[in-house]
Amino acid sequence: MTQQLVEELFIKYFHNSILDSGLDSAMLSLKAGKWAMTTDSFVVKPVFFPGGDIGKLSVCGTINDLAVMGATPLYLTCSFIIEEGFDIGDLEIIVQSMNSTARKDGLTIVAGDTKVVERGYCDGVYITTTGLGIVPNGINYSPSAMQVEDRVIITAPPGAHGLSVFAARNNLGVEPPPQSDCASLFSLIEPLNSLEVRCMRDPTRGGLAAVLNELALKGRKGIKIDESLIPIDSTVANLMELLGLEPYQLANEGAAVIIVSKKDAERALEKLRGHPLGRKASIIGEITAEIPGQVLMITYLGTERIMQMPSGVIIPRIC
Amino acid sequence: MTQQLVEELFIKYFHNSILDSGLDSAMLSLKAGKWAMTTDSFVVKPVFFPGGDIGKLSVCGTINDLAVMGATPLYLTCSFIIEEGFDIGDLEIIVQSMNSTARKDGLTIVAGDTKVVERGYCDGVYITTTGLGIVPNGINYSPSAMQVEDRVIITAPPGAHGLSVFAARNNLGVEPPPQSDCASLFSLIEPLNSLEVRCMRDPTRGGLAAVLNELALKGRKGIKIDESLIPIDSTVANLMELLGLEPYQLANEGAAVIIVSKKDAERALEKLRGHPLGRKASIIGEITAEIPGQVLMITYLGTERIMQMPSGVIIPRIC
Repeated sequence: MTQQLVEELFIKYFHNSILDSGLDSAMLSLKAGKWAMTTDSFVVKPVFFPGGDIGKLSVCGTINDLAVMGATPLYLTCSFIIEEGFDIGDLEIIVQSMNSTARKDGLTIVAGDTKVVERGYCDGVYITTTGLGIVPNGINYSPSAMQVEDRVIITAPPGAHGLSVFAARNNLGVEPPPQSDCASLFSLIEPLNSLEVRCMRDPTRGGLAAVLNELALKGRKGIKIDESLIPIDSTVANLMELLGLEPYQLANEGAAVIIVSKKDAERALEKLRGHPLGRKASIIGEITAEIPGQVLMITYLGTERIMQMPSGVIIPRIC
Repeated sequence: MTQQLVEELFIKYFHNSILDSGLDSAMLSLKAGKWAMTTDSFVVKPVFFPGGDIGKLSVCGTINDLAVMGATPLYLTCSFIIEEGFDIGDLEIIVQSMNSTARKDGLTIVAGDTKVVERGYCDGVYITTTGLGIVPNGINYSPSAMQVEDRVIITAPPGAHGLSVFAARNNLGVEPPPQSDCASLFSLIEPLNSLEVRCMRDPTRGGLAAVLNELALKGRKGIKIDESLIPIDSTVANLMELLGLEPYQLANEGAAVIIVSKKDAERALEKLRGHPLGRKASIIGEITAEIPGQVLMITYLGTERIMQMPSGVIIPRIC
């Protein structure tokens, strides 16, 4: 019965000509070219957190993985694993939020599936989304395109999503509760496709530290960043200090790290800051020939230290 | 740590140039045309059953959803939700079986994701696969294309998968244990694309009864079938009789229901019977102008009865 209720919800909110055909597969007319495809499962706990919910997160996460490759996200599939007894009202809120998030960027939800499992074999609801987006001609973002003196931009203060989920899960009782930055980055970063962008990443699991280390390793260059240039959210900063944690290993779900040529860095920054999601965007460092594969941070104190790749998961189930 | 082990497994087995690039999204060069896209989550219990496992099932299920639309499956993404403590050796068998199943049909696994949840929030492992396949020009399968006197073919005896999972889960102790028919149907049904096929469906959840009722409803035609023409697997038949169940509501994972023009029905049957998965293929009925939206079955006894749409799930978590 849950099954049927859920399918009715999908039809109510997601309806479009492709989905409504009710065929075993969605039929898409695709243009010739380069397409980006990505998939992610979302198991965030709790499913509702300040600033978002698992539905919004599952759509934004996939949009962002496409957008950082320069792609325009067009099609989305979603598959639900639902625990028997999960509140159908909550499910409706989740489905609504997937729908409004997808429509805002012009995505069509073309196929879906639902499986119901007995109590105790899921944690409310898990959602897997898969996205398909077209990549404009000439766009070929890759860490191997990074060049010495390229600039490193982060579009928002690090750690907001990870902290929000951590606080919500542990009933920290902080008022106002820290908000997740969960958002689609497509409209923020798509305008950068006209500039000399080398590559982009969204710092989710492992945060800024993981993304910078990954870029340094894959691009075989060094990255030098200046801690004093990293934008700060005061709620995040205060709480992190209290907890004795650094925000650099905490996830964002509405920020991007962008490697752009020295020449175009200021123009990129200008475009980003003109968008509500990029107001705190900042050039935080540059690509270097020294220390290839490593990330060096000049701290607030003026000392230098290697920013390590996070080992293990600090906060599980944040996405 | 599970996370890392799993990612190493994926690289070991799934490696290919697209996946190995390690980008946030897979980059695909697609031809212009009609593409089929489908997604499914798999939560089968137990994850190993006679004739297959959740890995093989998750790849076959998605291949089959594409193949019944006439598509050639080309790309696959897979996302794992894994319970902490799940045996890594078992996971390796599952990943191997996904890999060999995908490669057999020439599919490339282009993207993946893994999430680990604590004990008690999953049932070993759940897998979500999404497939993308190209549809040849001129193929446009749909129940609305069905015409009176078209023939109804089933390619294998009904119920084998559902019964196999049911027996394995309930330790029925039947020897030999009933085998699932879990298989990719692509090589079986692709040759039919040159014939006057109207539409195809794979009878998974709800079995033959669900598929026939769905076709009748969506095609706004009647379907008349002859029970004595439905192929039988004697293990399934005996056990079903013992359990007081009908095989028509039980799932297959290696059978297709095919609606083909009267003119091409015998040629279709010939092609199907020449393939190991179609040896028992049979024309079981036809499309009628009477009783639109309903399925009429002439029973072994010569009486007529309406084959109802299954209400509710008889055996949960079969896929």
